[in-house]
Amino acid sequence: MALRQKIAVLIGGVGGAKLALGLANLQPNPHLTFIVNTGDDFWHLGLKICPDIDTLVYTLAGTVDPQLGWGVADDTTHVLDSLRQRYAIDTWFKLGDQDLALHLLRTNAMRGQVSLTDFTSMIARRLGIAATILPMCDAEMPTSIHTREHGELSFQDYFVRQRWQPVVEKIAYDSGQAAGLSAQVREALTCADLVMIAPSNPWLSIAPILAVPGLRELLMALPAPKVAITPVIGGDAVKGPTAKIMRELDLEVSARTVAGYYGGIIDGFVDDLRNPHFSVAGLRTTRLDTLMTDLERKVALARDTLDWVRGWSS
Amino acid sequence: MALRQKIAVLIGGVGGAKLALGLANLQPNPHLTFIVNTGDDFWHLGLKICPDIDTLVYTLAGTVDPQLGWGVADDTTHVLDSLRQRYAIDTWFKLGDQDLALHLLRTNAMRGQVSLTDFTSMIARRLGIAATILPMCDAEMPTSIHTREHGELSFQDYFVRQRWQPVVEKIAYDSGQAAGLSAQVREALTCADLVMIAPSNPWLSIAPILAVPGLRELLMALPAPKVAITPVIGGDAVKGPTAKIMRELDLEVSARTVAGYYGGIIDGFVDDLRNPHFSVAGLRTTRLDTLMTDLERKVALARDTLDWVRGWSS
Repeated sequence: MALRQKIAVLIGGVGGAKLALGLANLQPNPHLTFIVNTGDDFWHLGLKICPDIDTLVYTLAGTVDPQLGWGVADDTTHVLDSLRQRYAIDTWFKLGDQDLALHLLRTNAMRGQVSLTDFTSMIARRLGIAATILPMCDAEMPTSIHTREHGELSFQDYFVRQRWQPVVEKIAYDSGQAAGLSAQVREALTCADLVMIAPSNPWLSIAPILAVPGLRELLMALPAPKVAITPVIGGDAVKGPTAKIMRELDLEVSARTVAGYYGGIIDGFVDDLRNPHFSVAGLRTTRLDTLMTDLERKVALARDTLDWVRGWSS
Repeated sequence: MALRQKIAVLIGGVGGAKLALGLANLQPNPHLTFIVNTGDDFWHLGLKICPDIDTLVYTLAGTVDPQLGWGVADDTTHVLDSLRQRYAIDTWFKLGDQDLALHLLRTNAMRGQVSLTDFTSMIARRLGIAATILPMCDAEMPTSIHTREHGELSFQDYFVRQRWQPVVEKIAYDSGQAAGLSAQVREALTCADLVMIAPSNPWLSIAPILAVPGLRELLMALPAPKVAITPVIGGDAVKGPTAKIMRELDLEVSARTVAGYYGGIIDGFVDDLRNPHFSVAGLRTTRLDTLMTDLERKVALARDTLDWVRGWSS
């Protein structure tokens, strides 16, 4: 009997979820654990909202809105419409009714001292998701964005309310209050045969995970191979503010910059076919089609990445 | 210039709201303050729910479901459906999406230390309600129902989940934790030209109000006339468990029993035309059509009651 390969993936929201879906559709199935950014979690209208976890949950449950890449397909917004129309509430953050059901459940569970880790596992089981989905930690570690125009903004204020238009001067990852690694994250990383960093925004999605006290050190000490996949293709990001932020932080918009940013953590880097060649001393690189436009290409990228890493030891 | 008459009304949910609508449509407009039962308020799915206040709010805002007499007209239940279908939550308490918007707002406000009194006033203003709607108090005073079959039940468990079918042995009104009368309730009663007790269930809707520490004593000391309207018509209640509970508590199902129950508090009692005559020493009585089947009859009952009381001093 072949043992199932154990893969742990550091991951953000919409961009990362594409790779997650590819991995979840691999045959034979590896055992997948997603360690998800919660730096953009926030409280809104009294609800605890975890955008990246929910995007992954809805994607793997097959209920995600296929156009948006987040939220629930065919969702309505009757609660939000009522808040705006009857009570004059500023509803800048879209909450569908079906989506809101999950926020209600989570808020109620967390008010009752259920951890985010336990709640997320329970929801994944109820929705029939085979993969393990873990928040990066149970404490709140809100990412804040220092902007030229508005000073310090909370993440969703910057990202959704201001549509990531303000110029970023600095990104701050709160770790002062964090209790550190959860037992589940520690175990998933320690036992992993392979650690992947999804093609998520390095500064907004992956850096908050690396800021969890103890996580970076644990990663660096792991004997398992660690590979990242480029979020930069052809001098831009597929979606979202990755390239814009790199420019604002005076970084060259290139896969090389990302590879360098993860330097010391990763052993391998999956670049895109379309990007110019580069090499970094001590870092294995390969070039694949990373533009996951359909399920077939998502699975292909997952499979080709795994095949490449398997070749290392042969 | 004629001064507006000030009327304070002790009131429950659906039955009382009919009278409230009649009073609100009187010409000239009296200044109305509704002092609303909160003994059936509860926390559900992490939401603070105030069924009687909401029924009154929706009724006076003109958005109430005309068939049910509670909830919002043409409401959907997408959040609730999602909780049941996707997450296997037992959704025994119906929460429409538009209704849920109000619960969300209230829960968020109260978590932020806004009092129920202040929140309710704010909502009434936003919805353009001219009347003042006050919770009977700001502390939680949950009514509990001791039943033969299930022992002690919380109010909504008895009323909604068990559809008020268990046999009632005792009704308990919590007042131990209550902070007593709010300044707003005290002022509304003290300044009232007339105090009314709506034709709500005396044991489930009015008794909890009378159990607010200090309220009964304040009422008894008021110089203003105090009148109650019968909730019993022709040996039964128009709707709900009033008659059933009276039988279970070994009380005669009659307006006389209700008048006696309010004895010492009220000066006048509005009986229904259909009921057999009775008299209680020291209590003025009149007989009107109290079966408020349409708006015209709601207004007529309100007007005739006021006219009757005005005649006392002539």
